[in-house]
Amino acid sequence: MGQRWTVLAGIVVVLLLGLAIGYWLASRRAPATGGGGPPVVARPAPGIPAEALEVIKTKGFSPDNVTAALATYLPTGKHDDYLMFSSGGHSGQVLVVGIPSMRLLKVIAVFTPESWQGYGFGVKETAFTSALLDGRDPFNGVRVNGRIISWADTHHPNLSETNGDYDGQYLFIGDKASARLAVVDLRDFETKQIVKNPLGFSSHGAAFVTPNTEYVVETSQYGSPLGGAYAPISRYKEEYRGWMTFWKFDRKTGRIVPQESFAVEFPPYWQDLADCGKGPSDGFAFCNSLNTEMATGGIEKGNPPFEAGTAERDMDYLHIVNWKKAAQLVAAGKAKVVNGMKLLPLEVAAKEGVLFFAPEPKSPHGVDVCPCGEHIVVGGKLDPHVTVYSMKKILQAIEKKNFVGKDPYGVPILPFDAVKEAQIEIGLGPLHTVWDNQGYAYTSLFLDSAIARWTMGNCKYQAPEKPWTLIQKIPARYNVGHIASAEGDTVEPDGKWLVALNKWTIDNFVSVGPLLPQTFQLIDIAKSGERATVVYDMPIGVGEPHYAQIIKADKIKAWEIYPEVGWNPLTQSKHPKASTKGSITRKGKTVEVLMTQIRSHFEPEIIEVNKGDRVIIHLTNLERTRDATHGFALGAFNVNASVEPGETVTIEFVADRPGVFPFYCSEFCSALHLEMAGYLIVRP
Amino acid sequence: MGQRWTVLAGIVVVLLLGLAIGYWLASRRAPATGGGGPPVVARPAPGIPAEALEVIKTKGFSPDNVTAALATYLPTGKHDDYLMFSSGGHSGQVLVVGIPSMRLLKVIAVFTPESWQGYGFGVKETAFTSALLDGRDPFNGVRVNGRIISWADTHHPNLSETNGDYDGQYLFIGDKASARLAVVDLRDFETKQIVKNPLGFSSHGAAFVTPNTEYVVETSQYGSPLGGAYAPISRYKEEYRGWMTFWKFDRKTGRIVPQESFAVEFPPYWQDLADCGKGPSDGFAFCNSLNTEMATGGIEKGNPPFEAGTAERDMDYLHIVNWKKAAQLVAAGKAKVVNGMKLLPLEVAAKEGVLFFAPEPKSPHGVDVCPCGEHIVVGGKLDPHVTVYSMKKILQAIEKKNFVGKDPYGVPILPFDAVKEAQIEIGLGPLHTVWDNQGYAYTSLFLDSAIARWTMGNCKYQAPEKPWTLIQKIPARYNVGHIASAEGDTVEPDGKWLVALNKWTIDNFVSVGPLLPQTFQLIDIAKSGERATVVYDMPIGVGEPHYAQIIKADKIKAWEIYPEVGWNPLTQSKHPKASTKGSITRKGKTVEVLMTQIRSHFEPEIIEVNKGDRVIIHLTNLERTRDATHGFALGAFNVNASVEPGETVTIEFVADRPGVFPFYCSEFCSALHLEMAGYLIVRP
Repeated sequence: MGQRWTVLAGIVVVLLLGLAIGYWLASRRAPATGGGGPPVVARPAPGIPAEALEVIKTKGFSPDNVTAALATYLPTGKHDDYLMFSSGGHSGQVLVVGIPSMRLLKVIAVFTPESWQGYGFGVKETAFTSALLDGRDPFNGVRVNGRIISWADTHHPNLSETNGDYDGQYLFIGDKASARLAVVDLRDFETKQIVKNPLGFSSHGAAFVTPNTEYVVETSQYGSPLGGAYAPISRYKEEYRGWMTFWKFDRKTGRIVPQESFAVEFPPYWQDLADCGKGPSDGFAFCNSLNTEMATGGIEKGNPPFEAGTAERDMDYLHIVNWKKAAQLVAAGKAKVVNGMKLLPLEVAAKEGVLFFAPEPKSPHGVDVCPCGEHIVVGGKLDPHVTVYSMKKILQAIEKKNFVGKDPYGVPILPFDAVKEAQIEIGLGPLHTVWDNQGYAYTSLFLDSAIARWTMGNCKYQAPEKPWTLIQKIPARYNVGHIASAEGDTVEPDGKWLVALNKWTIDNFVSVGPLLPQTFQLIDIAKSGERATVVYDMPIGVGEPHYAQIIKADKIKAWEIYPEVGWNPLTQSKHPKASTKGSITRKGKTVEVLMTQIRSHFEPEIIEVNKGDRVIIHLTNLERTRDATHGFALGAFNVNASVEPGETVTIEFVADRPGVFPFYCSEFCSALHLEMAGYLIVRP
Repeated sequence: MGQRWTVLAGIVVVLLLGLAIGYWLASRRAPATGGGGPPVVARPAPGIPAEALEVIKTKGFSPDNVTAALATYLPTGKHDDYLMFSSGGHSGQVLVVGIPSMRLLKVIAVFTPESWQGYGFGVKETAFTSALLDGRDPFNGVRVNGRIISWADTHHPNLSETNGDYDGQYLFIGDKASARLAVVDLRDFETKQIVKNPLGFSSHGAAFVTPNTEYVVETSQYGSPLGGAYAPISRYKEEYRGWMTFWKFDRKTGRIVPQESFAVEFPPYWQDLADCGKGPSDGFAFCNSLNTEMATGGIEKGNPPFEAGTAERDMDYLHIVNWKKAAQLVAAGKAKVVNGMKLLPLEVAAKEGVLFFAPEPKSPHGVDVCPCGEHIVVGGKLDPHVTVYSMKKILQAIEKKNFVGKDPYGVPILPFDAVKEAQIEIGLGPLHTVWDNQGYAYTSLFLDSAIARWTMGNCKYQAPEKPWTLIQKIPARYNVGHIASAEGDTVEPDGKWLVALNKWTIDNFVSVGPLLPQTFQLIDIAKSGERATVVYDMPIGVGEPHYAQIIKADKIKAWEIYPEVGWNPLTQSKHPKASTKGSITRKGKTVEVLMTQIRSHFEPEIIEVNKGDRVIIHLTNLERTRDATHGFALGAFNVNASVEPGETVTIEFVADRPGVFPFYCSEFCSALHLEMAGYLIVRP
């Protein structure tokens, strides 16, 4: 009996041992971590469907590929954690991308008319059209210098900030091609204002906000006579200038206030990217320059071309601007007025402690202020280092008047070694730097096609490695320009994701002809050390982005529908001509139509007018259902409206040609959408 | 000894048994196939990195989610198998999407100026600008009725076909808002031509090609007086008309030839979608109609609105057009000419056997010809059935003159039961049908928010199930309009993927304000029966697509760079003003500039002119490297060019304002891209 129990117990023990070994054998094939390496061998796996293993095998995925696919995928109805606002470059627009799925959620029409959004096609309640209808005004952002400007080169979007943190309320974006600035309201993701900088025709260092969005900075690019004046290029040093403009922003109205804005005059060095200080550097703004040689080109006359002439000196100047002092001086009446804009003259700025220069490795691109505000990092694209300046040292040098001299315009120059904190050799073509919350900085390397991850010193966060050390070079495909990290330009970066805005695409995607898309690469930066990895490649076939910012999606409180029926999206208030009932009223040669839209008809449907009549249609979408947008397409008069639930817009034109012109709803709003139509009949 | 061996053997057996059971226990948790079900339980798995399992767990993925994530993911440098060309709706453009990754590879500028591509911003060598510069011409696609039309509502793209198969050479797209048609050359993915239909101001059934792209069909939408004439709406029945236009396409020049095109006059029923026959139906074209009531609306006068008035009768008319006979009659001089377009009069078409009607359930949307060409499927959106017509039966009825009567305009009406092959109840709001190579048809159900998979009968492919049977309703999120399947409109569909173009998005993505993106859902249709599944949700935030076609990517032989330096992309030949050397020549008040671009300078860099001079710049990009595109931005004159490697373009303007205007390369072409600049100096 006892022996039998012993044998039985032995059998059970051996069976359990077998069970354990078998289970362990089955389980141990999963590697402990991801990492590159050979393709995954597809075998039955607990919890993974056989189909999925077949896909892995067929596609030859590495373990990293498998992780990346899963990390970036969102099933139906699942939402992204972050929104990236990216410039659209010379499309003139702003791109909204979800992260981590890297899906393009919307292109916001800003400077360029866009008919899907009814932006610039006859609807008055858009920033474009309202500016178009305005008269002469040096700040008019569409009718510039007497000509309609209907495109832009958008470069650097900035989200509004409160205490140095993105607050999710507004977005600002600059136009390099025509020196303009636009404001987007993030309640409805629509552009509300476009202003023209009356000082010149090109800018680059825009839009960068101060930590509480008191001002939005815009800095000139190519030196030019002030105010759009003429001067021969032989008078370059004497009559051409640069500037940094501080556009006053009124958060309550959501508008730039040109009359309360001002600028600081600069020498005609080609100013480049800018950033605003925070923490210890709050009150200061910074920008680079790349032609302190003041070269004027002329390859056609045997001169060195600009690309050579602007790169002769080893050092250019980091511009350090005390904007709080500048604002005081402007308030004290020290500014002159140029073409409507208050401008603090260069000699005043130089003399009164507003403007200082620090030498920087030549032809730099990005100047970026770290999360704690103490470090200013310059990427000197012809130099393999990033150069880190210390705000503390800058302030000390200024206080002690520790200057190595002045530039030809009298601006004090700080000693490089006295204000430099560190120089780190990171690779070829450093451009732009962002941060995470692990103590790493990331700098794009255009020529190396890589992103350098390196350690900060004496900063808010501290990486485990030695400070000021290159840790990893993450390969980018190809030629990365700007980079963005989650909440990366705030006082508290999130440290989860980084996006590389790659300028060259070459063979990344199926060929779509000689004009290729750009490539955005999503990089997982959550793991420390050398373990940052590319997880997604997104083609951008709608523009050439230059800069982006990434915000936590839940910080933005976008409206699902407009607050009430009859909403004017431009003024964000009730439209005086909103109506819930259709009508047609004639006064002389003006026919005014109150028109409503609801699934699936217009009221009225037939509008009869005489040739030469002025037709004004106030169009109200009566819907209160999310996504129940209606369109109003009147092709023959070049009109298209996108009228979101509750919105009222006004369309005005002269019925200058007789005929029968169908109009219809250009949104597929219901099963009877095709029947949502009417006729404008113009009697001869 | 013997007993010891027995015990040892017993232990081994039990151990092995344990091993087997343990292994089985560990392995059985992987379901045999995908399928929905509970979230995957993340455990160590052979070949799957632990990180990936952690992601699956964190995200709560189902087995289907895991498979879908892997099936749609493409690692860096891997290419999509298919390209989808989708209309952009009222954006006026065409979208190019990679499948299965559902990445937007490019938006092709077609009808709406687009500055990233330099389309419509001062460059003469674009379809938009060249039409803009042309004089008065009824076929001019941009200067319509004396007004510049700078947007469109693009609906139905069609790829060029050879023997009923996509040949990858050209793409055609219609504009509903202004009754226009455009041609895109797939060598460089650029629009080459925009033509205006001079018969009216709205069309919908475009662009549908005949099996060898002899003609591209465009069918009117809202009844109107022919040729843009005026007639009061009280004369609707007498003077308003519809039409189907056959645009002649010349494959050698890649151009529509308006002079060799013709149209067939229709009654003023609102014609809708169209398709061309193939195989047994080759030589015929089909379109639907939705207002055989000839309702004229007028809700404002107490009449039923169009949505009600157009739906009073139970049946509307499927239009059956013998276009080969029509072409013969036109060649024989039976056409009249309306506003430049040859038009076969309605009475001739009715009498001479060109036009026939078959009753169809009221207010239909799609009419689609199956791969073998025998079946014509109509989705009658107010009827829960699809109706399948047989071409054989149609031809028999026509031959036997088996008519139930004539419509008020004398068009013979075929008996519904004599030409009907089948009616299948599939659900609410059937719109549009496509096919695979397994014998299934797929019909979008707008109201059901689903796609019906049902079996064909007597067709090229035969599904295992009973013919004419509903097999599966695949849920769509939400309100699916059109659908597209891989090579789905050809004689040989691929049967791999289906894309649902969903009209409503609601809560699918992070909120981006009251105007939401559309949703494309990728559906894996490779498995038979009820096993088609949604694998990807793509937001479309750049337009409102209506129709798409999907082609094998390797069928398109796109150029990587232009064939030689000095290429004019509009004529696809050498540009007469191409030059490899810069120069400036003045003749009177005209300044002609031959300008070159190469990384990273222009030649010349400084252009000095007098106020009032006409400036003509012929710009040649000398690069032979793929992706080495340069821009030319001259903001103050509203000019932006995108000049791809080898391209030459011409920019012309009057320097009507004095000043100093920087120009620069708007593509980030090299590390010294910012230095690629110059000045246009206009002396007062």
